[in-house]
Amino acid sequence: MNALHFTGNQSFSLEPAVAVAPQPGEVQLQVAYCGVCGTDVHIYHGAMPHRLSLPQVIGHEVSAEITALGEGVTGWQVGDRVTVRPLQPGTEDPSDNGQHHIGKNLKFIGIDTPGGMQTHWNVPAHTLHRLPDNLPLTLGAMIEPLAVACHDVRLGQVQAEEHVVVIGGGPIGILIALVARQKGAHVLISEVNAARLEMAESLGLAVVNPSTTDLLAEVERFTKGAMADVVFEVSGVAAGVAAMTQLPRARGRMVMVAIHADPKPLDLFRVFWRELQLIGVRVYEPQDFEEAIALAESGTLPLEKLITQIAPLADAQSIFTAIDNNPAGMKYLLQCS
Amino acid sequence: MNALHFTGNQSFSLEPAVAVAPQPGEVQLQVAYCGVCGTDVHIYHGAMPHRLSLPQVIGHEVSAEITALGEGVTGWQVGDRVTVRPLQPGTEDPSDNGQHHIGKNLKFIGIDTPGGMQTHWNVPAHTLHRLPDNLPLTLGAMIEPLAVACHDVRLGQVQAEEHVVVIGGGPIGILIALVARQKGAHVLISEVNAARLEMAESLGLAVVNPSTTDLLAEVERFTKGAMADVVFEVSGVAAGVAAMTQLPRARGRMVMVAIHADPKPLDLFRVFWRELQLIGVRVYEPQDFEEAIALAESGTLPLEKLITQIAPLADAQSIFTAIDNNPAGMKYLLQCS
Repeated sequence: MNALHFTGNQSFSLEPAVAVAPQPGEVQLQVAYCGVCGTDVHIYHGAMPHRLSLPQVIGHEVSAEITALGEGVTGWQVGDRVTVRPLQPGTEDPSDNGQHHIGKNLKFIGIDTPGGMQTHWNVPAHTLHRLPDNLPLTLGAMIEPLAVACHDVRLGQVQAEEHVVVIGGGPIGILIALVARQKGAHVLISEVNAARLEMAESLGLAVVNPSTTDLLAEVERFTKGAMADVVFEVSGVAAGVAAMTQLPRARGRMVMVAIHADPKPLDLFRVFWRELQLIGVRVYEPQDFEEAIALAESGTLPLEKLITQIAPLADAQSIFTAIDNNPAGMKYLLQCS
Repeated sequence: MNALHFTGNQSFSLEPAVAVAPQPGEVQLQVAYCGVCGTDVHIYHGAMPHRLSLPQVIGHEVSAEITALGEGVTGWQVGDRVTVRPLQPGTEDPSDNGQHHIGKNLKFIGIDTPGGMQTHWNVPAHTLHRLPDNLPLTLGAMIEPLAVACHDVRLGQVQAEEHVVVIGGGPIGILIALVARQKGAHVLISEVNAARLEMAESLGLAVVNPSTTDLLAEVERFTKGAMADVVFEVSGVAAGVAAMTQLPRARGRMVMVAIHADPKPLDLFRVFWRELQLIGVRVYEPQDFEEAIALAESGTLPLEKLITQIAPLADAQSIFTAIDNNPAGMKYLLQCS
């Protein structure tokens, strides 16, 4: 068995590893696949160094089988197929308002603690969600990002027949668009990259390139003048934030999915003038994982088409390089066992 | 009878006027009092010139008695005491989403059309709300700004026992604080002006001066670490916007009351990180007027204390000068008949 050590400076080292017996309350997993998240790519490029202890195994989008149960773990058996909701709540802070998934002392498993890019991985049993027998483990590794999309669409309160604009057509933007469409919404993706536009179109999604088409006019056309009920900002760039406030109708919702490291100018007059709402969303809650699993099991989302490449853990270094050079890439999976 | 003509360039001219018979669907009012709104002061200083037709009568915070009914007006009688909800919806736009009070083609009476700083004023009957017999007409002229506060607190979903921070202690900020307190919330006002702080304190409101006290630490203390459930941004300045995102607890709400003419930097990371909500609010709906009237009638709000001065219409020029020079001033009423 092996573990992929991130050693800093865009470098990984595959090291032999020994399976460790799970602590009380933990399970030992044999990881089948671990997806590469945008966050993993940011870490690879040097982000969040204070949260890591190098060398460290990263990764948090996994499918796995349980190989051992720690003391006191009930409800699970060796051989169960699972995915992991990689959140470890810490001591509750009064300002958490009961929102454990975004608590002040939350640890994100795979960043603040070791992750899933290894053959065997021990995690707390409370993080597990069961995968249906008929769900391929490749798709099991996509439950975590799909749960992000389910959370975002849920908090955005997307309803059937509503008009939804997704600004940014990367993996999360595409998943949000697919989940919103599944709810019966009419979805338009705004994206500047030709390869990503092509990917979105191949999934039957309406697209617009705001660098060549007037986005406002296109949204007017798409909605027959009604404008957007919900806008998801997933681009992470100032142009996306600027566009976001111009697209909703009165009392429309804007969902802040992207991570904007620095404050960005926001048209607060527009927020006031049309009584818009901006809704911050982060990670997921247990029900979002359950919804994601049910959606994946239903087979109604074209999740297979989002898998760009599956590669052995030993090829991780070249996979991270490939991701940097391929804007058309969606989801890369590392085969961990 | 007289009409106060705003002639531009911070100048008013009191002119004799003749009462005009109301058009079909209108009523003729004899205005008792007309309050001076911050918006009137902005107009006096040259704001929104494209919306005015000079010379123009402005003003929209009135108490009045009906003196004549236009053709087709039912449900009202000469002598009825009323206030006016100064909104004239225009043709509905598909993007209005049924929100008539902020419709794209809405006209604001007293800006886009003649206002209430005159002895007789004709308005559409649909704008009227009845004033209780026992409510002094001085307080009747405060229903409109109080309805703003009721709208803002309602859309902010303020609940009993919640912690509320109001950034900006001008007339609207104070009214929001009073309405939120009436709902059972614990309210803290952040204000930099000493005279306004004193006014807020005299109303029994908790205050903090963020220029001399660490606002974040004070909100932590005030809430025992729970942080704010709701923050109202009423200051209209960048420092208020910057503070706004730092004060809520997880899933806390921020209500955008102030008019920010230019985009301002917003900490979108914080919105994401704590799943905050920003809620735009503008003017009011009929139910907010009804709530404001009921609140005023109940006598539970210290509205009289907010009246800084009552002056005849003939003194309007000096009143506008006084407002500019008196940050302690809250509500100035012009006696129109």
